[in-house]
Amino acid sequence: MEEYAKVAILLDFYGQLLTPRQYQILDLYYNSDYTLGEIASQLNISRQGVYDGVKKGKTTLKEFEKKLGHAKRFLKHEEALRKILSDLRRVKSLDETEDEEIINSCIEKLEKVIKEL
Amino acid sequence: MEEYAKVAILLDFYGQLLTPRQYQILDLYYNSDYTLGEIASQLNISRQGVYDGVKKGKTTLKEFEKKLGHAKRFLKHEEALRKILSDLRRVKSLDETEDEEIINSCIEKLEKVIKEL
Repeated sequence: MEEYAKVAILLDFYGQLLTPRQYQILDLYYNSDYTLGEIASQLNISRQGVYDGVKKGKTTLKEFEKKLGHAKRFLKHEEALRKILSDLRRVKSLDETEDEEIINSCIEKLEKVIKEL
Repeated sequence: MEEYAKVAILLDFYGQLLTPRQYQILDLYYNSDYTLGEIASQLNISRQGVYDGVKKGKTTLKEFEKKLGHAKRFLKHEEALRKILSDLRRVKSLDETEDEEIINSCIEKLEKVIKEL
């Protein structure tokens, strides 16, 4: 996964542990795709201030992940569950309505879990 | 869920954000079932010191959970996945070997995901 997407996930996982200002800068940069210059102008701080904020916030997020590893665990489970879901969709030979309902309900529930992960 | 089990889960999720000494005290108390007196004697600090450490550590863990909510999300997913697993076990009418293999493999994979959550 590219660095940009990685940090966006870490921001989702640990953003609430940053200071509100740090979170605001990283949110604009990683979630709203603002440039450093646009953030500087929006928050009325220097471009260098924004750059430092992004760098520091990113380092802090990576430290949280290094200690807790919740994002890594999440990505691993997400992949595993998607695989199970795709397997279940391959089941064809259900000749009892009840079983078909079970499988379809499992697929729906798995889709819901994955969506909410 | 009772308070004791709740804190043990929070310790599992956020313990690495505590100071090493705080983690040690809470680990002995919540995971190894030591009494306050036993921990005091083991770490050569006062019983009051242990009590304060447990109280402060517990508060810190709860603050992390309040901000991030990872434990709550985990418990919700765990319950949902267990339900799906239990549903899949009810499927009976698979008349093609291939499909039976798919379901069995899904059950195995789900069991693995739940175990590693």
